[in-house]
Amino acid sequence: MPDKKTESDLIRDLDNVWHPCTQQKDYETTKPLLVERAEGIYLFDSDGKRYMDAISSWWVNLLGHNHPRLNAALKNQLGKMAHVMFAGITHSPAIDLASSLVKLSPENLSKVFFSDNGSTSVEVALKMSLQYWQQTGNENKTRFIYLKGAYHGETLGALSVCGLDIFRDKFEKVLTNNLEVEGPDCFRCPYNLNRDSCNAECFEPMEKALDEKDIAGVIIEPLVQGAAGMKIYPPSYLKKLQSACDSNSAHLIFDEIAVAFGRIGSLLVSEEYDPTFLCLSKGITSGYLPLAATLTTDEIYSAFYGDRAKLFIHSHSYSANPLACAVANETLAILTENDFMAKLAPKIAKMKQLGQKIADESKWCGEFRQQGMIAALELVKSKDSKEAFPSESRVGYKVYLQGLKRGVFLRPLGDVVYFIPPLVITEDEITTMMNVAEESIAAVLS
Amino acid sequence: MPDKKTESDLIRDLDNVWHPCTQQKDYETTKPLLVERAEGIYLFDSDGKRYMDAISSWWVNLLGHNHPRLNAALKNQLGKMAHVMFAGITHSPAIDLASSLVKLSPENLSKVFFSDNGSTSVEVALKMSLQYWQQTGNENKTRFIYLKGAYHGETLGALSVCGLDIFRDKFEKVLTNNLEVEGPDCFRCPYNLNRDSCNAECFEPMEKALDEKDIAGVIIEPLVQGAAGMKIYPPSYLKKLQSACDSNSAHLIFDEIAVAFGRIGSLLVSEEYDPTFLCLSKGITSGYLPLAATLTTDEIYSAFYGDRAKLFIHSHSYSANPLACAVANETLAILTENDFMAKLAPKIAKMKQLGQKIADESKWCGEFRQQGMIAALELVKSKDSKEAFPSESRVGYKVYLQGLKRGVFLRPLGDVVYFIPPLVITEDEITTMMNVAEESIAAVLS
Repeated sequence: MPDKKTESDLIRDLDNVWHPCTQQKDYETTKPLLVERAEGIYLFDSDGKRYMDAISSWWVNLLGHNHPRLNAALKNQLGKMAHVMFAGITHSPAIDLASSLVKLSPENLSKVFFSDNGSTSVEVALKMSLQYWQQTGNENKTRFIYLKGAYHGETLGALSVCGLDIFRDKFEKVLTNNLEVEGPDCFRCPYNLNRDSCNAECFEPMEKALDEKDIAGVIIEPLVQGAAGMKIYPPSYLKKLQSACDSNSAHLIFDEIAVAFGRIGSLLVSEEYDPTFLCLSKGITSGYLPLAATLTTDEIYSAFYGDRAKLFIHSHSYSANPLACAVANETLAILTENDFMAKLAPKIAKMKQLGQKIADESKWCGEFRQQGMIAALELVKSKDSKEAFPSESRVGYKVYLQGLKRGVFLRPLGDVVYFIPPLVITEDEITTMMNVAEESIAAVLS
Repeated sequence: MPDKKTESDLIRDLDNVWHPCTQQKDYETTKPLLVERAEGIYLFDSDGKRYMDAISSWWVNLLGHNHPRLNAALKNQLGKMAHVMFAGITHSPAIDLASSLVKLSPENLSKVFFSDNGSTSVEVALKMSLQYWQQTGNENKTRFIYLKGAYHGETLGALSVCGLDIFRDKFEKVLTNNLEVEGPDCFRCPYNLNRDSCNAECFEPMEKALDEKDIAGVIIEPLVQGAAGMKIYPPSYLKKLQSACDSNSAHLIFDEIAVAFGRIGSLLVSEEYDPTFLCLSKGITSGYLPLAATLTTDEIYSAFYGDRAKLFIHSHSYSANPLACAVANETLAILTENDFMAKLAPKIAKMKQLGQKIADESKWCGEFRQQGMIAALELVKSKDSKEAFPSESRVGYKVYLQGLKRGVFLRPLGDVVYFIPPLVITEDEITTMMNVAEESIAAVLS
């Protein structure tokens, strides 16, 4: 029985709160989880019942909740100032963060523009790209290429490069005309190839699209298309894309919002590439506070430098919020010391071993796929045909409810049960997480 | 002489940081102010020199920097959890904030959707409005009306309802087609009327525009068009707008991002209206952390309730960030106790008295205008003709530099020197602020 405070909170929630990406009617049957506190990889409700945060609170938490060093960094900055405007004014937390990001990212990236969330970091990249072409005599370059299945945020600019119908279809009439191309679809590869051995034959449509003369740039989620269902594709695709963008004078925009800062087992995917823009958010504050950064090159920056008329007019009131920057600086410190990344290897191996075992033994798992600390099981009606369950059977949602019962907060994307735990999860906790997923799947489908 | 740390920080800033709404070349001659800490209404650089934050750090700070109660609220929440995802999960800080906002806002507003900044709160309102019309058999209603001079944020959706060329002109090709109408322009009223006695005769173009059949809604900054240069217009315009929207089935979107929470001398402009959407951000956390809310009605909410296909698909990872919500709750507590709003009256009177005196005595001040705790002096080449200075003479920018020398951080919009101090400013400090503005204007123009 929930206590009185819990009960009254849940009533007020239903009365006044409209939750993101939620059919509020679902709360008639299953109330939202009222979380009171969090510690490490666990969330606690008001009864003290704990839930493992297996998806890092929408992929943001890296180092666990209530981390002593992050808390201390935040309090330390709070003692100086919470915030100050960022035009005409600067401050050490932002300068330190910009310097670190430039040091850790590809050599060609030298300038950091701060904003508040993933969507805005993408909007900044799109707007900088468009204005760059306007100011360098290429006024016709006004369209972006994006992949089918792509997700880059939900403000209308970011949504105009989204390749998922469910996010766009209500807004098609107001979305600017960009160019969607078929991208990798490794689980159901139309070329009947394997992502571990292919040569990204699926790059062909992109190559053709880049022939268009009005292309400003290509935006891509490197290696993992998150919202599409943790679709994982090989680096060979990115290598081809880098080279094709270079030879077609198209900007390459890496949206590493979901995959940066250790998720793939190293700090950044872009370490091995030279994107024109790099969008970062989510894990940048290890799940503490909203903050985003768009990195770019000296060449882009130069085109805005000089005349008053050339400046980049874009701002958010809380740009480079000092509290968020302070937490981000401490996050980066932790991630880059004591061989943090190397120590992920056994965890990655454990996820692989258990995930593959589930996929092999279950008649419902069409594929287990993994990229570093990101893993997913795609549930299908038939392993042979890879036919999906009808969406109205809501298999993924039911797995979510089963997971909750067992103390693990999973939130499948459709019927893809995925795992993006905080990087500090232990091997034993990985075992628990994946066992619960296996049981929850079985409870729904057996 | 700046110390070594300051010098090195400023070099790193120029090397790696791209500031918002800034021509970076300006920093060759005037370095950004390196702020180390802040207290009350003052910012302090590393030498301990203090600057009055006369524009509340881009209009966000209400209660002063480093406020003991806000700091305590933040630390208290930090001890429980910094953040947790907001789909499938809820938490008291967000529930309390939503309840308070609903209580304090117009009676027809009952639901609160959280996001991270002003732009996203506007994008949420636009998207909810569009989807509402799609789902209620009015698929043709896809355009919004906005005023000339309007500013509602800079993500591409928000920018598509911006009526300021300087923000839009580089991006026209990708902005969706909305409808700009001439709005009030009281300082240079084409009807030769006075805002204190007119009957909003300038409403005519809006009335005509609302005849169009494809109008989803009208978005407006009530009473003060901020970025346009603190252009202040009379409530009679809003009354007419409310009535015209009602009779034309157009949603009325109030963007109170800049004016809410005491700026106009009371909590909300919308207290006296029934907007369909209310966008809030900036002061909601008293300048501590990024947070935004879009409020709407049961009627809107109902159109999304039920089938899976009807849900509002929009999310930001840090939606309803508990730390920001906790600070917002404490901010609202302070603003609504001990007659906080009533106590602004003598401050408002002091600003009026001093501002009007400057305008009367200076040959450069075309108008002093004020709405509660927001005030502005519009500098002109000729008081008679109201002719503006040529923009290349950068009068406002020079006033800014003079203000800095005198320890007051002003940041004119073009040649409009404006004042949006933290609400906790004292009458003596108002005197200092406005005397410095007067001296700075004289130093530039005499």
